[in-house]
Amino acid sequence: MKEQKKLVAEITSMEEDFAQWYTDVVIKAGLIAYSHIKGFMVYKPAGYALWEAVQKYLDARFKAVGVENVYLPMMIPENLLNKEGDLVKGFAPEVAWVTHGGSEELQERICVRPTSETLFCDFYRDEIHSYRDLPKVYNQWCSVVRWEKETRPFLRSREFMWQEGHTAHATAEEAEARTQQMLNVYADFCAEDLAIPTIKGQKTDKEKFAGAVATYTIEALMHDGRALQSGTSHDFGSDFAEAYDITFTDRDNKLKHVYQTSWGLSTRIIGALIMVHGDDSGLVLPPRIAPTQVMIIPIQQRKPGVMDKARELAQELSDFRVKVDETDKSPGFKFADQEMRGIPLRIEIGPRDIENGKCIVARRDSGEKMEVALSDLKETIGKLLPQIQQDMYDRAKAHLESHTYSAADKEAFVKTFAEKSGFVKAMWCGDRACEDAIKEEMGVTSRCMPFEQEHIADTCVWCGKKAKKMVYWGRAY
Amino acid sequence: MKEQKKLVAEITSMEEDFAQWYTDVVIKAGLIAYSHIKGFMVYKPAGYALWEAVQKYLDARFKAVGVENVYLPMMIPENLLNKEGDLVKGFAPEVAWVTHGGSEELQERICVRPTSETLFCDFYRDEIHSYRDLPKVYNQWCSVVRWEKETRPFLRSREFMWQEGHTAHATAEEAEARTQQMLNVYADFCAEDLAIPTIKGQKTDKEKFAGAVATYTIEALMHDGRALQSGTSHDFGSDFAEAYDITFTDRDNKLKHVYQTSWGLSTRIIGALIMVHGDDSGLVLPPRIAPTQVMIIPIQQRKPGVMDKARELAQELSDFRVKVDETDKSPGFKFADQEMRGIPLRIEIGPRDIENGKCIVARRDSGEKMEVALSDLKETIGKLLPQIQQDMYDRAKAHLESHTYSAADKEAFVKTFAEKSGFVKAMWCGDRACEDAIKEEMGVTSRCMPFEQEHIADTCVWCGKKAKKMVYWGRAY
Repeated sequence: MKEQKKLVAEITSMEEDFAQWYTDVVIKAGLIAYSHIKGFMVYKPAGYALWEAVQKYLDARFKAVGVENVYLPMMIPENLLNKEGDLVKGFAPEVAWVTHGGSEELQERICVRPTSETLFCDFYRDEIHSYRDLPKVYNQWCSVVRWEKETRPFLRSREFMWQEGHTAHATAEEAEARTQQMLNVYADFCAEDLAIPTIKGQKTDKEKFAGAVATYTIEALMHDGRALQSGTSHDFGSDFAEAYDITFTDRDNKLKHVYQTSWGLSTRIIGALIMVHGDDSGLVLPPRIAPTQVMIIPIQQRKPGVMDKARELAQELSDFRVKVDETDKSPGFKFADQEMRGIPLRIEIGPRDIENGKCIVARRDSGEKMEVALSDLKETIGKLLPQIQQDMYDRAKAHLESHTYSAADKEAFVKTFAEKSGFVKAMWCGDRACEDAIKEEMGVTSRCMPFEQEHIADTCVWCGKKAKKMVYWGRAY
Repeated sequence: MKEQKKLVAEITSMEEDFAQWYTDVVIKAGLIAYSHIKGFMVYKPAGYALWEAVQKYLDARFKAVGVENVYLPMMIPENLLNKEGDLVKGFAPEVAWVTHGGSEELQERICVRPTSETLFCDFYRDEIHSYRDLPKVYNQWCSVVRWEKETRPFLRSREFMWQEGHTAHATAEEAEARTQQMLNVYADFCAEDLAIPTIKGQKTDKEKFAGAVATYTIEALMHDGRALQSGTSHDFGSDFAEAYDITFTDRDNKLKHVYQTSWGLSTRIIGALIMVHGDDSGLVLPPRIAPTQVMIIPIQQRKPGVMDKARELAQELSDFRVKVDETDKSPGFKFADQEMRGIPLRIEIGPRDIENGKCIVARRDSGEKMEVALSDLKETIGKLLPQIQQDMYDRAKAHLESHTYSAADKEAFVKTFAEKSGFVKAMWCGDRACEDAIKEEMGVTSRCMPFEQEHIADTCVWCGKKAKKMVYWGRAY
């Protein structure tokens, strides 16, 4: 077991240094490698497989609610980007500019898309003429570039992958309904596929998307008590349509502007997966999206019949995503490796097990080990995987709840953030000044005004004026 | 039927102007829209769905032969691109250069990847140390940018989507075997999923990839007799490994350079799909990859029970990819639309059909219409779809064969290209000079030296010197 210890020892413990633990897991679990350009990551097979799983499950949910996929150019001419004032202010400082094509200088510089509102607007202006052309419910899976100063794997990088949905509707009500519908799709995806509970709510004006009428968000809580914005859905009203002149002839024969939405979820969600479920042995993946669900590890694999039996079990369990670790490493190393990679179940099978018609099944999430008769193995695995999924959700939910506090006044608010890590629910007057001061003085931001409002006090936690909304506050990634 | 005529009339016929027919189909079938930047296309839902189908079926074939997906940065620093001389010469004239990140000028300009050999080499240098780290059989799905002067939808654009596989091996033999294996994957994918027969062979030195030891290709023949290179697989030997210093310690404890391959297939293949199978009514899609396989068109849809019956049939046929056209257009318009979009089967169902327990099933590929009892419908559709797939392949194969000619001498060679369109098989001495002259004087290029060689004559079709290889010659897209 020396090798196992050694491998595990290479990860910093969460308690000691959560940020270093995160970086260690990302590297040791083989998710990414740093490239030689700052802020650009290499997604290795284990990392990209997680993104493929996200795409597969989320895309199926999109298609079930009538979303169609498209693909728009990765380049945006400067004049097109400049049409919508708020958007320009929000993104221009961080775009990458292309000035030359081959050896020729371009007449107008173009940027690599930081987001595609402008392109969708330009496209929709040409495509939409009549109410018959509406709604348009399009999405694209792509990568975007934002020239960030500080970068961290998955959480913030100069290039990142995401999906961005962009829709156009005949009425404000329909756009608002779609905005909320897509937020629910994200929340359900996180809860059911990723076992990540989230808080649904609306962003304050300070935190909303540049140019949006309303931004909705799902906020997850990481193991260290910091929040991660995990998906956002924006109602644009008709502001973009006016800036980009997207009109249609309605049933009443009048020319009107369309109403638009956009919504996105990115590779940040992989950061959430790591930081919600991971532990000091590495990644812990929920069975539904785990690229490999079961790793079979042969013990004394050179003994006759062992490797054959391991392969036979893999065959028998082929309804699940199962692999045999056939490398020539020691069992201890293989155990540690399977744990590091977060594979939900491990099956240990050696000569004595075969003799007794049994094997050991170990759960990655709880560490529980059980002896299982080979004749019951398939049924047991079939029950364990959804059980693990549920247990992981329940644990994450319990963590979220036990790390959510309430503060009725400023003193309690300051004290709670000083002593605890997590969300703090507190009342807010609605003034930007209080929000700014809280961020300035405490490094805490408004995460959202949750849909499920509670009455904690009558007055704003900061200024003491009459409160308008209950807000989730937190320190965020 | 006036609407139907009108819609169809908007497509130029193939005979009249094949290039215009192609553009018409691409637009009228809703595959793409032009963006406002030259050479950058918008993939509309019907166009992107074809690329999704290509990805799904090809990726499954990749995974069956041990390929793992990764994702590398979209940006390449200039010094990295410059390390391999041939590659730089081949690509530097057509890359897009990023010179500014936000408001800052970059210290070193970086390009948007035109292809990712350099990035994979850089990555592999860090990842590969021992023979235990080999082979690496990685692939990525991404888009690349090449600043082309002339552009055409799918066939040549400044940004295009593709997959690029990049592998590293311990021996030259293993690399060569992988190169050929992946070419076979492409050929099987084209034949079985896209119903496109291809000629497999090796590119001449003139036509091979910059920096490759050998390039293999699959060449398809379009309806107009022009060739389309549909997928390529390159054996790099150890040249890149030497330029980028990718070494490993082998079993014999010696430090060696790895051997590499790369292989790619792009959105050009959608151009092939259109030009191999399409006809004067629009697209014709092979059932296996058709996003919608069956379109149900209700006749007199406002009559009671008709729409309900159409939906009921859709439910009953849910093993297939089936849709009901519920728009308020006329049946004639809907027929023309379904034909334009290339949906393999159409079901017509009206009040009288319902009364008689029957419907009309129409094949898109052959135009054949048949009356089918509703009780037999599911079974009939289940048989028709694979039959159409097979028939489409057979027709494309017959077209390829009937448009492949042989020429034993220069006179016959010139005459055949003057009178016919298609491939011409002819002998070649192996000299670049003959190849250059043939291109210069006739606009004809060597498509490949097919694996299945034939002896057509003893001497080169151009210079009359001793022949070394039989070559497929053609005019290409």
